[in-house]
Amino acid sequence: MAHVNEHYLKLAGAYLFPEIARRVKACADRRPDVADRIIRCGIGDVPGPIVPAVASAMHDAIDELASIETFRGYPPATGYDFLREAIAEHDFRSRGAPIDDDEIFVSDGSKGDCGHFLEILGPNNIVGLPDPVYPVYVDTNVMAGRTGSALEGGGYEGLRTLPATVENGFVPEPPDEHVDIAYLCFPNNPTGSMIDRPRLEAWVRWANEHDAIILYDAAYADFIRDPSKPRSIFEIPGARTCAVEFRSFSKHGAFTGVRCGYTVVPKELEGRSADREGISLHSLWTRRWTTRANGVSWPVQCGAAALYTPDGRDQTAEVVTRYMDHARLLADGCRSLGWQVHGGEDAPFVWTSSPGGEDSWSLFERILEEAAIVVTPGVGFGRMGEGFIRISAFNTRERIDEVVDRLGNLGG
Amino acid sequence: MAHVNEHYLKLAGAYLFPEIARRVKACADRRPDVADRIIRCGIGDVPGPIVPAVASAMHDAIDELASIETFRGYPPATGYDFLREAIAEHDFRSRGAPIDDDEIFVSDGSKGDCGHFLEILGPNNIVGLPDPVYPVYVDTNVMAGRTGSALEGGGYEGLRTLPATVENGFVPEPPDEHVDIAYLCFPNNPTGSMIDRPRLEAWVRWANEHDAIILYDAAYADFIRDPSKPRSIFEIPGARTCAVEFRSFSKHGAFTGVRCGYTVVPKELEGRSADREGISLHSLWTRRWTTRANGVSWPVQCGAAALYTPDGRDQTAEVVTRYMDHARLLADGCRSLGWQVHGGEDAPFVWTSSPGGEDSWSLFERILEEAAIVVTPGVGFGRMGEGFIRISAFNTRERIDEVVDRLGNLGG
Repeated sequence: MAHVNEHYLKLAGAYLFPEIARRVKACADRRPDVADRIIRCGIGDVPGPIVPAVASAMHDAIDELASIETFRGYPPATGYDFLREAIAEHDFRSRGAPIDDDEIFVSDGSKGDCGHFLEILGPNNIVGLPDPVYPVYVDTNVMAGRTGSALEGGGYEGLRTLPATVENGFVPEPPDEHVDIAYLCFPNNPTGSMIDRPRLEAWVRWANEHDAIILYDAAYADFIRDPSKPRSIFEIPGARTCAVEFRSFSKHGAFTGVRCGYTVVPKELEGRSADREGISLHSLWTRRWTTRANGVSWPVQCGAAALYTPDGRDQTAEVVTRYMDHARLLADGCRSLGWQVHGGEDAPFVWTSSPGGEDSWSLFERILEEAAIVVTPGVGFGRMGEGFIRISAFNTRERIDEVVDRLGNLGG
Repeated sequence: MAHVNEHYLKLAGAYLFPEIARRVKACADRRPDVADRIIRCGIGDVPGPIVPAVASAMHDAIDELASIETFRGYPPATGYDFLREAIAEHDFRSRGAPIDDDEIFVSDGSKGDCGHFLEILGPNNIVGLPDPVYPVYVDTNVMAGRTGSALEGGGYEGLRTLPATVENGFVPEPPDEHVDIAYLCFPNNPTGSMIDRPRLEAWVRWANEHDAIILYDAAYADFIRDPSKPRSIFEIPGARTCAVEFRSFSKHGAFTGVRCGYTVVPKELEGRSADREGISLHSLWTRRWTTRANGVSWPVQCGAAALYTPDGRDQTAEVVTRYMDHARLLADGCRSLGWQVHGGEDAPFVWTSSPGGEDSWSLFERILEEAAIVVTPGVGFGRMGEGFIRISAFNTRERIDEVVDRLGNLGG
């Protein structure tokens, strides 16, 4: 008799975005006038397109696959050297972060990597998670058996909460209680906050002192405007012995439909075996990839490498500037309503609450019904997100202007 | 203190193909005369190229991504409907296998799926594995904690062996002892054997009687020449309550570098919870994908769908015929040496042993040193593969002719 993974049975409700999709559909079915003019500022899907440098590189790569002389078969499980080198050089070494080419692991996206990385860690680690937080961190830990049952009102037994609040600028402090694995995400999804160097130094110090690991999600690093802020945790001395970093091409590279990201695992990073011996996580992660995957599509890796060419860099810089202009417009629009506004300066998300103190889903429903705009309810990211909504800057300028206009006409 | 997944520490040695690569490099460094003329019949990487229908569809898809009007962002986590429908219709319903579109889960390759599927099954299931067997099945179960320690001479404590021998035509029988999850792979990698309908019916009967699950790897289904043989386990009545099937586009579609495959999970298939309640594996698998992945690249899915167009089907049929001609030539060549030859009729692999009774690695080294041909040592697939080598038919005709020639000149 085949048994299932019991931990899956603890998972509460549907994942946030399917739930939003369900509610939008219900509203659209009920209200054809809303259905006709819905603007989505929810899921963070970019409007595209991919930049010309990427398109050109991908076309060339397909021509190579279509000729027996230049065909490429199985890629290296952890990524082609040319791409690993471009990443390590441009995203790390050029910024003073000492990362070797073979510490870059190319994948089909950072969402996957966040879950996969848990496979090489033991089930009994105590996990610290910000609240509010990207729900994938929570659910993948539930699936991996690192929690107890779902709690009423959200969350799971056994997880430690790292509160992100108005008071701490939505940047959690290192915990006082015992934590083995701590998640941090900066620029932050969903709150749009950004950590400064002294506070990230404090986290690295804490992790090294406690032999803990920081899983650092920097999927939005390319949106940081403030040059004093760290784009990578590896710009902080000491991070090589305590951190892993997840990166994505999805947003600045419009790779949501292309699918590519990467994870950085330094060779000094160790976990402990049951007898407290240090075990290289770089080795375990390499073994994970060589055994379980065949690497990323040739045209996709060629497209990703094109993001690092001079043309690719110029073209994506324009894209980033455009989205950050949108974030500013959205923030100004919400402020003019008298709403409290956070984020949007070093991150493509605005995090806001209405002065009426409405709960997140009420605000979500009101904005959907009255303005035909889909936002993301903050409470979907955790209890401490209650009262907030997240508005994404990933849209065309035309639609952003329309969103600001419609928000201006909202009642209450 | 962060702990590692202890099960990884049980993994013995390197994965087979890295070990082959290491030995080939060592030989090439020592023998420049060998290095200059190496022909690889080892890893099963196809020479390509992708067929024109696929290249054309992928080019169109990239043009769509490059325009804001036709851009595609996040794909559905389990695949686009148009591709799921093409697969379900052509690979299943047209052959009398009752599979719905939403029972097809599109992924970046079947190697990954074989490991991922274990995530939704409990750690205490007893696993039955053929010997010889694709090493990924073994290693992924070790990583998932379903074995004890590595055994001397190969294998791991706790796994049940399903022997594939000359006597049973390399088609294992259902086990007498207790097994919850059984792996089958037909057309078989590495032995090139193919199961017939009555014997597959016996497996389905066994699984339903014992509430067991068959993980059926049909990555090479398109190479089956004998029309009486089942291409899918779902052509067998009763399979919908006991089987999962893994498929790949890598070989017939030359998708090794494109990366796409799929898994079939019928809605009737259930595992058991600890309190013996039936739990839908289709639901758990759907949850796994929506939480842990963002789906497969748009141009890749478009390329895969092109395999099912009339042009795509004609073009891949030619490719398959060519490889099966190669398999026949290789089999004939080995027979003319007086070797015992298996496989190569419904599968693109020839499985053979020398009359001298050499062990696999000796035969591997001899063929490498004397003929500069890389084969795969049978013992790399399990103890019962000792004495055999696998020769892959995936090469150009020119190289296959050269391989047959060189084998003919082998000593001993």
